[in-house]
Amino acid sequence: MNLEGMFFPESVAVIGASNREGKVGNAIMKSLKRKYSGRIYPINVKEDNVLGIDAFSSIINIEDEIDLAIIALPAKIVPKIVEECGEAGVGNLIIVSAGFSEAGRGDLEEKIKETVEDYDMNLIGPNCLGIYNPYNELDTIFNPPKRQDRPEPGSVAFLSQSGAFGAATLDWFSEADIGLSKFVSYGNRVDIDEADLIDHLSNDEKTEFIIYYIEGVKDGRRFFEAARRSTKPILAVKSGRTEEGSSAATSHTASLAGKDKVYEGAFKQSNVIRAYDLREMFNIAKAFSFQPLPHGDNVAIVTNGGGAGVMATDDLVDKGLNLARFTKKTKEDFDHAVEEGIIPEHATLDNPVDIIGDAPSDRYQKSIDIVLKDDNVDVVIVVLLFQSPAIEEDIIEKLDGLQGEKPIIAVAPGGRYTHKLTEKIEEKGIPVYQTPAEAVEAVWGLTRCCPKT
Amino acid sequence: MNLEGMFFPESVAVIGASNREGKVGNAIMKSLKRKYSGRIYPINVKEDNVLGIDAFSSIINIEDEIDLAIIALPAKIVPKIVEECGEAGVGNLIIVSAGFSEAGRGDLEEKIKETVEDYDMNLIGPNCLGIYNPYNELDTIFNPPKRQDRPEPGSVAFLSQSGAFGAATLDWFSEADIGLSKFVSYGNRVDIDEADLIDHLSNDEKTEFIIYYIEGVKDGRRFFEAARRSTKPILAVKSGRTEEGSSAATSHTASLAGKDKVYEGAFKQSNVIRAYDLREMFNIAKAFSFQPLPHGDNVAIVTNGGGAGVMATDDLVDKGLNLARFTKKTKEDFDHAVEEGIIPEHATLDNPVDIIGDAPSDRYQKSIDIVLKDDNVDVVIVVLLFQSPAIEEDIIEKLDGLQGEKPIIAVAPGGRYTHKLTEKIEEKGIPVYQTPAEAVEAVWGLTRCCPKT
Repeated sequence: MNLEGMFFPESVAVIGASNREGKVGNAIMKSLKRKYSGRIYPINVKEDNVLGIDAFSSIINIEDEIDLAIIALPAKIVPKIVEECGEAGVGNLIIVSAGFSEAGRGDLEEKIKETVEDYDMNLIGPNCLGIYNPYNELDTIFNPPKRQDRPEPGSVAFLSQSGAFGAATLDWFSEADIGLSKFVSYGNRVDIDEADLIDHLSNDEKTEFIIYYIEGVKDGRRFFEAARRSTKPILAVKSGRTEEGSSAATSHTASLAGKDKVYEGAFKQSNVIRAYDLREMFNIAKAFSFQPLPHGDNVAIVTNGGGAGVMATDDLVDKGLNLARFTKKTKEDFDHAVEEGIIPEHATLDNPVDIIGDAPSDRYQKSIDIVLKDDNVDVVIVVLLFQSPAIEEDIIEKLDGLQGEKPIIAVAPGGRYTHKLTEKIEEKGIPVYQTPAEAVEAVWGLTRCCPKT
Repeated sequence: MNLEGMFFPESVAVIGASNREGKVGNAIMKSLKRKYSGRIYPINVKEDNVLGIDAFSSIINIEDEIDLAIIALPAKIVPKIVEECGEAGVGNLIIVSAGFSEAGRGDLEEKIKETVEDYDMNLIGPNCLGIYNPYNELDTIFNPPKRQDRPEPGSVAFLSQSGAFGAATLDWFSEADIGLSKFVSYGNRVDIDEADLIDHLSNDEKTEFIIYYIEGVKDGRRFFEAARRSTKPILAVKSGRTEEGSSAATSHTASLAGKDKVYEGAFKQSNVIRAYDLREMFNIAKAFSFQPLPHGDNVAIVTNGGGAGVMATDDLVDKGLNLARFTKKTKEDFDHAVEEGIIPEHATLDNPVDIIGDAPSDRYQKSIDIVLKDDNVDVVIVVLLFQSPAIEEDIIEKLDGLQGEKPIIAVAPGGRYTHKLTEKIEEKGIPVYQTPAEAVEAVWGLTRCCPKT
């Protein structure tokens, strides 16, 4: 399946384009016009012009070759429109409209499916938001940017069965500066399904990590085979885990959520990382987007607060990660730093390293440098309790200077001052979490993303 | 044990008060001077005046009666100072200094303990931050307010064995407008321990909820007996859960973290709510601080995004809460709202209620009102996906108008626009969470806080 024309169309028709505020076809036109530089063709049976662009009464009347048609019209006339797209030689379709199998009209979907196959078209939807591709600004999302930001280009592909939840996640990613390679909200996936998207993204040079929100997959076997084939790590949030949730999913996207145990087993077998909560998904995506992958799961902790070190240690063990055992060399380096007076004698220099409440940024720098050089350490978690008056703000530059091949993950619980500094550290590409458990979650996710051996 | 003079002293001596920036005795003087209106006596052997207040060379020389003495001097001279406090008739002590049992000097603690008992004094510490009481602004915390905010007066007492973690939490609570009744960082608890504090706070009229961060309790039996006696709900975060964490705790606060299974069982038996993560603790504290307690655990969900409804349903079931079964009356009310055109026909009007992506605030108002009136509903979770252009900003006032005896908990995942609206909703006293799982966590915590029957 070649989806080049779907993600990088040179021409796009919007069927149902409208001048009327509040109409989906109006909002999509605005999203497209904002930055997308390809040719845009509004289709409207009554209007000659939509938002300053000449409009056509039917796709049949356009002489140009149309790579992608976006359909935003009432469900009942969509089968006819799809037929017209086929006749017009359109290669790719996105049907945004709802009112199909999720509303008891599976018959309409069947007709569309047949037509799409007859004309050998690719279809995303119906009942979806479509695509956002930050690399060419193809944007079929009808939510206004004022309410929903679009992420910058990056390496994370996000695929969502649910449109509304997909939009919320994009908005969250944007605020956190998590870079996106592609977003696809695929709704009822009558044609292109989960497996097709994995196959495509696995070969997409912009994508390094695939995140999936699913309620139920169309074809479990195909999905898990594609997941196993994928050269990119996949993280999935699967809802409808419980009987009650599964029943709610059925009325949402007409999904059969299926037995959760079956999914659980299949995720494991196909190396899909499973997140149970959105924040977990978000935490892992942020770490992946900001930091290199570790070469193993041995973690060093450096903290100015003993309590946070204890908590992080518990969380590491819970997640099956290892508290790194320092080499003799590291112990010697620490002893040396104590002799030099950079680290005080009563610091705890075993892992978790507690450089105590009065640690200035020099002490942090020295300790982190020592543990990063330890061959037994793959990742460093740095706890920064900024409430202590001792840490100077130059810790930001010092942390930045320590970045290299091993990932550094920071934890900084707190309020306003902490958030100000957090933002500056994240600008340097080091992700900062509010709690030890979340930082550990992120580290766990990173270790799971390592290439399969 | 009468702790009135500890929390509401009319006179405070700071032993080790200093004019030198960076000294703990300087920072504590500044914290006290900021707002506390009682009489302050700096003690310094060399200076006549500390930060504009006449200083004394020893507590013995003060003629006034001293309710509370705060000691910030090197560990080795503290036993002698405690003796002097006893002679001077001081009723209450806070020893901030570190360097005692956690640093292998249990012998110093033993001496202090004897003296405190001989003179019948109350002691908090050593190795702690002491007290923050928002009701009289007694503030012994040496972190500057610029780096660590102090919460407003409220109903949540927060007790922490770890000073640094306690400070970070206070800072976080401040930003989230979680009101505080008392904060105590009690460190090595040579005299006043966990059980004493529970007994005191259980009878404290300002306190309605007690939160504990503990690594290990001094006397398990006393602690759990006090917890069982407590008339206020208690939430505990216990770290040192794992062998590795427990070992780290020992070098932190000289705590024997103990077998986690024993704690787990004792928490259950004494009705202590256990949180495993700081964010969980925070989420529950916020809900408690903002909303009334529910009368049961039947939850209704109202959402404009099906996916979020499915997720919330899964999370409810995971936590052992109930998806409320609506009464016949509620179904009739919904049917009526459909007839009136307020709710569209294709909305899902069973629980979780999906009022779909194009829901304006009127539709929210009507739906929430209907479920709140249902006798089978104890709590309502409202999911607000603000990315949708349909919800108007008057939802803030509408949600506020719906507040009554049943708690309302909101969920709004997203970025900048969402956070702007979140802030406004929280100003009305409705807590807003970023993910369905966190809102459910908060609801679970609230149901666990209900008076024991």
